[in-house]
Amino acid sequence: MSTPLKYAVFGAGSWATAIVKMLCENLNEVGWYMRSVYTKEHLLREQHNPNYLSSVEFHLEQLKLSNDINEMANYADVLVFVIPSAFIHSELEKLNINISNKIIVSAVKGIMPESGLLVGEHFHNFYKVPYDNIAVIAGPCHAEEVALERLSYLTISCSDANKAKTIANSLSSDYIKTKISDDIVGVEYAVMLKNIYAIAAGIAHGLGYGDNFQSVLMSNSIREMKRFIKKMHQMKRNINNSAYLGDLLVTGYSTFSRNRMFGNMIGKGYTVKSAQMEMNMVAEGYYATKSAHFLNEKNNKKTRLPIITAVYEVLYENKNPKKVFKKLTEKLD
Amino acid sequence: MSTPLKYAVFGAGSWATAIVKMLCENLNEVGWYMRSVYTKEHLLREQHNPNYLSSVEFHLEQLKLSNDINEMANYADVLVFVIPSAFIHSELEKLNINISNKIIVSAVKGIMPESGLLVGEHFHNFYKVPYDNIAVIAGPCHAEEVALERLSYLTISCSDANKAKTIANSLSSDYIKTKISDDIVGVEYAVMLKNIYAIAAGIAHGLGYGDNFQSVLMSNSIREMKRFIKKMHQMKRNINNSAYLGDLLVTGYSTFSRNRMFGNMIGKGYTVKSAQMEMNMVAEGYYATKSAHFLNEKNNKKTRLPIITAVYEVLYENKNPKKVFKKLTEKLD
Repeated sequence: MSTPLKYAVFGAGSWATAIVKMLCENLNEVGWYMRSVYTKEHLLREQHNPNYLSSVEFHLEQLKLSNDINEMANYADVLVFVIPSAFIHSELEKLNINISNKIIVSAVKGIMPESGLLVGEHFHNFYKVPYDNIAVIAGPCHAEEVALERLSYLTISCSDANKAKTIANSLSSDYIKTKISDDIVGVEYAVMLKNIYAIAAGIAHGLGYGDNFQSVLMSNSIREMKRFIKKMHQMKRNINNSAYLGDLLVTGYSTFSRNRMFGNMIGKGYTVKSAQMEMNMVAEGYYATKSAHFLNEKNNKKTRLPIITAVYEVLYENKNPKKVFKKLTEKLD
Repeated sequence: MSTPLKYAVFGAGSWATAIVKMLCENLNEVGWYMRSVYTKEHLLREQHNPNYLSSVEFHLEQLKLSNDINEMANYADVLVFVIPSAFIHSELEKLNINISNKIIVSAVKGIMPESGLLVGEHFHNFYKVPYDNIAVIAGPCHAEEVALERLSYLTISCSDANKAKTIANSLSSDYIKTKISDDIVGVEYAVMLKNIYAIAAGIAHGLGYGDNFQSVLMSNSIREMKRFIKKMHQMKRNINNSAYLGDLLVTGYSTFSRNRMFGNMIGKGYTVKSAQMEMNMVAEGYYATKSAHFLNEKNNKKTRLPIITAVYEVLYENKNPKKVFKKLTEKLD
């Protein structure tokens, strides 16, 4: 790797925009693929994303923008995917070049809803990307605070520590501190599970539970997350590291979190459909709940997941949130 | 224990008032000692505490009020102390009866500032109360939410599980769930340490750090708390249980927390003195910081405490909070 690696970011939401900003602090050129022709043209004209983090101004000479996923995948050595898990499958269907020699970085905050596969597993199984070439970016990091250049910490996981370091260096700056980890599976599950717990926190808040209960819920959530991840992939990890507990807290306690907001509406009496229509989007945790539920169901080493089960019953079995959460309070401690 | 135990609460702050309310859900009579004659007279006239949780109405026939600490200590079998750690020593000096056969419950959120002893150790050393007769009440529990009867969880720690259960039962109700623990030392340290981390969270907020950093700070705080407690008293404990992590979160994330508020003022540029004068009180964490610092310094098995050290430098060494926290950010991950 003597010539510097070329990076491209795939996606144009707030997290994708934040990652492009971080990379622009370090690299002369950053590739940026977005589906929308309008977004690209707006960026070229106004130097900012029209829909997300619009306060962030880019230098156009640093950006290589494209609406063609193949052109961008061909250009870059490191492909950073930041597309909601619900759309990643259909986006990838457009891909017709061989990417098995690329480094794939997942900043998708969920798992493939069709298969229940982690994003890394999906690229490994269907695109023959070796596991050593797959990395995950985890927070705790609201994109909105990256826009404000408020100090944030990222964890980059990859089984190849050198690659993790290289990617970490390309993201680090005055306001971004990075660490590396080799727990790619655990971190990717944590990123997905935290959104379910944020929905639970939102439902509880919507139902009128207070701060005392919220802290009990978070304390039980991190223990449940630990049990879940351990059953999926046992290794030595400290679940209280920032990539797991920190990310859970920033999502569960934030009123910005779309997952928490979605849960809050459910708690206040919206149906799942009406909450989704009102928000004009589907919260990542909605899919994650179903995936986590079935991953556990089909696992021989099934574990106790009272919080995920409660959210599943509310979102997928149309059960009354008030009754479900009343029952849940008996299972927490 | 065939005749029901008689309980008395010592103190008249918000947490004392909340505990009296909890006990009144279960007991025919609750003793309540308060220093202030005015508070007692107001309670007798208006059925509520004039200064704290004034929305909580008591039934006077349930209360046995007294301004005489000896009368009250003599009356009760279970003495629940809810006096700020800064004042408990001077209050106890009035005590001239033998309490060695009583059950002592500490709901003091700190340790003895004069000696660095845990409240339980203090009663053991100076009042010959056997350790089996000493218990601790831990949250996560804001008194304000008890007043609103919002669901809250308490942990009662005592080395004698039967006594822990008895006390837990006297506090349980529709809105209070309890669990018991035998980690009396660990829980008492946790109750004290969380206030230091709440000050740190407040300083960070006052200095302009955002939610991303806050979650990293909490993730590092619980790891630091685990290290500290392990050095003081090694036993099997899950630091993510509600009594440790839950209590840390409810304090660290709450804008109600007096410790967080105190830290916030320091971060915004108040001196320690002016913040204390403005708040008209001394936050528990102020004393806890000094005690924790020296307990660690004199411990042979000293551990790394970057957050407590940073707070100590700001509060006791008059160092610039901005510079101290900038240095701290390099030590967190």
